[in-house]
Amino acid sequence: MAQKRLVRVSLDRPTSAVCVLGTEIVVDLQGCAPDGCKFFEICATPGVVIDLNCHPIKRSPSGTFKCLLEPGVEMTVRMKTPSTLLNDQKVKISYLGPKSSSAQALLYLTGVQISLDVDTYRNGRVKPTDGKIDKRNWTWGPNGQGAVLLVNCDKDSPRSSEVDAELKKVTNYKDLKDMSLMILSTQTPKDFFARHELILHVSKFEMDKVRVFQADQKKLLSKYKMILGPKMPSHVLKVLDGPQENTFFVEGLAFPDVDFSGLVSFTVSLMGISNLPVPEALLFQDTVVFRVAPWIMTPNTQAPQEVYVCRTYDNENFVESVTALAKKAKCKLIICPEEENQDDIWMQDEIEFGYIQAPHKIFPVVFDSPRNRGLKDFPIKTVLGPDFGYVTREENKDLITGLDSFGNLEVSPPVTVGDKKYPLGRILLGNSSYPREESREMVKVLQDFLFSQKVQAPVKLFSDWLSVGHVDEFLSFVPAPDGKGFRLLLASPSTCYKLFEEKQKEGHGDAKMLEGVKKKGNKTIKDILSDKTLREHNQYAESCIDWNREILKQELGLTEQDIIDIPQLFYLKMQVSTKALKAEALFPDMVNMLVLGKYLGIPKPFGPIINGQCCLEEKVQALLEPLGLKCIFIDDYFSYHLRSGEVHCGTNVRRKPFPFKWWNMTP
Amino acid sequence: MAQKRLVRVSLDRPTSAVCVLGTEIVVDLQGCAPDGCKFFEICATPGVVIDLNCHPIKRSPSGTFKCLLEPGVEMTVRMKTPSTLLNDQKVKISYLGPKSSSAQALLYLTGVQISLDVDTYRNGRVKPTDGKIDKRNWTWGPNGQGAVLLVNCDKDSPRSSEVDAELKKVTNYKDLKDMSLMILSTQTPKDFFARHELILHVSKFEMDKVRVFQADQKKLLSKYKMILGPKMPSHVLKVLDGPQENTFFVEGLAFPDVDFSGLVSFTVSLMGISNLPVPEALLFQDTVVFRVAPWIMTPNTQAPQEVYVCRTYDNENFVESVTALAKKAKCKLIICPEEENQDDIWMQDEIEFGYIQAPHKIFPVVFDSPRNRGLKDFPIKTVLGPDFGYVTREENKDLITGLDSFGNLEVSPPVTVGDKKYPLGRILLGNSSYPREESREMVKVLQDFLFSQKVQAPVKLFSDWLSVGHVDEFLSFVPAPDGKGFRLLLASPSTCYKLFEEKQKEGHGDAKMLEGVKKKGNKTIKDILSDKTLREHNQYAESCIDWNREILKQELGLTEQDIIDIPQLFYLKMQVSTKALKAEALFPDMVNMLVLGKYLGIPKPFGPIINGQCCLEEKVQALLEPLGLKCIFIDDYFSYHLRSGEVHCGTNVRRKPFPFKWWNMTP
Repeated sequence: MAQKRLVRVSLDRPTSAVCVLGTEIVVDLQGCAPDGCKFFEICATPGVVIDLNCHPIKRSPSGTFKCLLEPGVEMTVRMKTPSTLLNDQKVKISYLGPKSSSAQALLYLTGVQISLDVDTYRNGRVKPTDGKIDKRNWTWGPNGQGAVLLVNCDKDSPRSSEVDAELKKVTNYKDLKDMSLMILSTQTPKDFFARHELILHVSKFEMDKVRVFQADQKKLLSKYKMILGPKMPSHVLKVLDGPQENTFFVEGLAFPDVDFSGLVSFTVSLMGISNLPVPEALLFQDTVVFRVAPWIMTPNTQAPQEVYVCRTYDNENFVESVTALAKKAKCKLIICPEEENQDDIWMQDEIEFGYIQAPHKIFPVVFDSPRNRGLKDFPIKTVLGPDFGYVTREENKDLITGLDSFGNLEVSPPVTVGDKKYPLGRILLGNSSYPREESREMVKVLQDFLFSQKVQAPVKLFSDWLSVGHVDEFLSFVPAPDGKGFRLLLASPSTCYKLFEEKQKEGHGDAKMLEGVKKKGNKTIKDILSDKTLREHNQYAESCIDWNREILKQELGLTEQDIIDIPQLFYLKMQVSTKALKAEALFPDMVNMLVLGKYLGIPKPFGPIINGQCCLEEKVQALLEPLGLKCIFIDDYFSYHLRSGEVHCGTNVRRKPFPFKWWNMTP
Repeated sequence: MAQKRLVRVSLDRPTSAVCVLGTEIVVDLQGCAPDGCKFFEICATPGVVIDLNCHPIKRSPSGTFKCLLEPGVEMTVRMKTPSTLLNDQKVKISYLGPKSSSAQALLYLTGVQISLDVDTYRNGRVKPTDGKIDKRNWTWGPNGQGAVLLVNCDKDSPRSSEVDAELKKVTNYKDLKDMSLMILSTQTPKDFFARHELILHVSKFEMDKVRVFQADQKKLLSKYKMILGPKMPSHVLKVLDGPQENTFFVEGLAFPDVDFSGLVSFTVSLMGISNLPVPEALLFQDTVVFRVAPWIMTPNTQAPQEVYVCRTYDNENFVESVTALAKKAKCKLIICPEEENQDDIWMQDEIEFGYIQAPHKIFPVVFDSPRNRGLKDFPIKTVLGPDFGYVTREENKDLITGLDSFGNLEVSPPVTVGDKKYPLGRILLGNSSYPREESREMVKVLQDFLFSQKVQAPVKLFSDWLSVGHVDEFLSFVPAPDGKGFRLLLASPSTCYKLFEEKQKEGHGDAKMLEGVKKKGNKTIKDILSDKTLREHNQYAESCIDWNREILKQELGLTEQDIIDIPQLFYLKMQVSTKALKAEALFPDMVNMLVLGKYLGIPKPFGPIINGQCCLEEKVQALLEPLGLKCIFIDDYFSYHLRSGEVHCGTNVRRKPFPFKWWNMTP
């Protein structure tokens, strides 16, 4: 849809107009038509294309059009090529009066090329669009249009203490690679810019979301100047006549959020400068639009790239086990030393790894929780770096609860629910089932951020029934060779009771729990089965898990065949902060596992030993190994379990991004 | 899509479960099946509907089902009617082992009715929905679903100083009519609520957008209690057994805005209370959703209901003229006295009239500009009242410019652009053409509010070229019997020049402007035509109007036939605040008119008198009277024009709401 501009002509003096290639000039035919005029004739130089909507059009051999001057007659003109000289094309309108009287209006035209372009087609190349699409619109889907911007949230300069987006300069050439290109192509005749200027601008409402740097012709880094950004909504460009290309580098400063859709538009305006004391006149605008790439989480079904774990004075064996597991999974291991973790072992809870992607660039981004315990500085001091971004949301620390830790933030593998596809899965976050004074839920800044990313539409689960309150205490996902490509694992008290009842029937009622880690007072299978209070606690726990089970089935489109029940028992105890009964795992919570491809690091349950083997381990192996998974049980009893967490809580994984590109979906 | 809940049965003891009518219980068949069991048989009492997905199902004459116990076999049960006694329905599952051994699981069921309902179908009636629709979703369009909430922004109590939404109580019975009904229907057997409770709740993130009052059985006003609202996200309901209806009245507290979609959900949760020391368990949730009605503007094509004008010490004649015009248009006149307007005559600029609509109620709402000059208190002190709402957006007064006055806020009649329908028209607001330090634009809080209403998608025009900076200085809409039902009027310098040139040719070059109001130095037609500077000023003004003309054509789907050019001249003068040249009307700006149906109150232009008649008036009459419009020229020269405004700026109109209901469109 070509942009149009009205130009008024006169019988008294010639009119000059600039026509930007790809736009149309609507010539006001009626405005200066003499009274009583019935017909008009048009003739034009060869560089001008004339469009007339009058009927009939008579065309003479000389190329002149003759038309009836009726109401509704419209003439548009456009240019075939840029002019080589100012006013080098011409249109003559002859008004034919009643008694063969005639009057003439002359329009001189200067054709120029002015095009602001970005990677509208999302193939990593900046190319002018064909005239049919409206560059102002950003649309989703494989046939969508509109460019992508990355939040420049990594830190390419080793000497800087801030993310690149905080800096008003380009730190190094790598930094430029994180930015999106925007190119202004112009072709104007000599002396054109003596009387015209081009201004690049962004809305004042959007200027604090972006920065634009202008490239230096000689590509000297120090010459890359910031021309748009916070408090800088517009910039007069210095453009030379002739064929020119001006290159701009654009970086995002903010992720989509509750008050920012993620869309940012840039416009170039062509202004005509009068030699008279009147303001410059707006002649043409070209607008392009970017969407800031959302932050995307990766589910357990994505291949692991790096495993993170904390080393403290008393978790040597655990770190050793995780090291061995990572080695098996051919996965890099990153150990956070004591001086960086300040005895905070919950690597899962302080951070969540995700990534951002544009057609030209992809890099991981760590989302830093407002939990802020010992690992508070680890993500920004250690994880943030070249091509490793950082984002956080802060909140008054009095409002932060256990539900704001990222063990309470997971993501499903890709799913389809009815007709609705979620090719990047759905975020799962834990909340209370209904709000009351003492109930906990994830703080608004976190939920707002997660919902605003749009591409992994979050599902709210019920996790406040747990003492710690994390979804990873009752669910996990493992890859599977069949079905939907994964299984949902759920902690299951009834599966545990059923197993123990079988074992008791088989004559193993006296087999003891937690042998090897607990020296006295160990309960037997019989003790557990006859403990009425424990059974009631587990019926309650199971009702909470079952509530989530039905939500998960509905919101992820799962059936019972997609779910595997992992034997587990819970018990209730009074939580000091809320004065309510909350659940904790009775023995190491097996579903709280570390998934590295087919290798599963499962908390060693220390279940009853029967015929020389732990019957819980045996059961879980029987459930998972047919899927080609390898169960590796890790002893986390003293170092993690007794501190109310397990293997998953104590580790974190950076995974491979999805091959699917987020802009190809429709949220 | 029925809500489902998993229930686990046991061979050891019977299980009891509550089944809410319209929901399904998924019975876990596998959980307690004895080892080696191949078949199972189901028999149930007549009030239970059984659904089994196994093949083949054998059904005995006694009504027993027999099935193969395979992986994937699922049984759901639902209830036909509410139970009359607790556990009065029963399902028996018999597991048939290899050697005709058998084991049984018993499930006792209590059917209850619990339904939270609102006016989901938008017909003004609260009725239970059929089970197929998901009451949690709000959708647009004639086949859409989801109820509507009004911001209770009127003031039904004469003694109150605040809008009703500020009060935590119901002020009178009229106040209840502004609220939306929400009804909880329950039917439970005796003693049900001894062990269950119902909790009504709203998200903590949405609680400050609404208030819910619970009706008293005896309908005593003082007994209507606020049960949900700011800081009150949940409320335990006192519900009796047997068939019951609890009625709630819901009011909105906030209009949609940049951080509030307008959607608010309410949920009722059924909790099972254990006699054991375990927390209450969540058994069922029913959720309904409201959308807060947007604020809607009315274009000139809507019938006028009330005309507003200020009376001051020196505008007696003007008020008289407006009074006469209102009388002709059979329209109520409201005069704001001097003590209420504090010599602020710009009634258009302080307020914009609109309305809000729900299926059960509609009332006008005045939008109060943050301009805050003499008329500052008028909207809240005088306009706000019973069934007349009020809304405002405030901003730091240092940021307020002329563009925040509501002469810069207009709305088009209904239009269609390509395939896209705007049945309520589009909002038009004036801005700068590009942002620079000195440029003015409407403040963000106003633009955010206007864009967030969604149903009249705003179009940004360029008005910063004008000294006052209002869109009503260059455009207006009038009703028309043909075409699209209206014409867009645009101020047109070239039309004025053309007219004057004709008049000069006819020998009237010496006819004087502004005769009758200006005593000396009056310019003649000849003076004007020969004033080169004035011509340049008007060429610039026209280029700005033409820029808007093309935006309006594109964004409202108009052609030249929909536009009428109204002769007008401007001149440029230095604006002190911005140190830039800005345009003002050279003579009373005719397009700045008051449109009351077919009666137009047009600023009297005091143009050159030719043959005893003002040639400008004659021209405008010739343009508009063929449409059946009556041009009434009002002298506003001294009282308004010389103060940089005209008739439209000095008046305001409350108009009839659209017959089209906003929820039937798709934004």
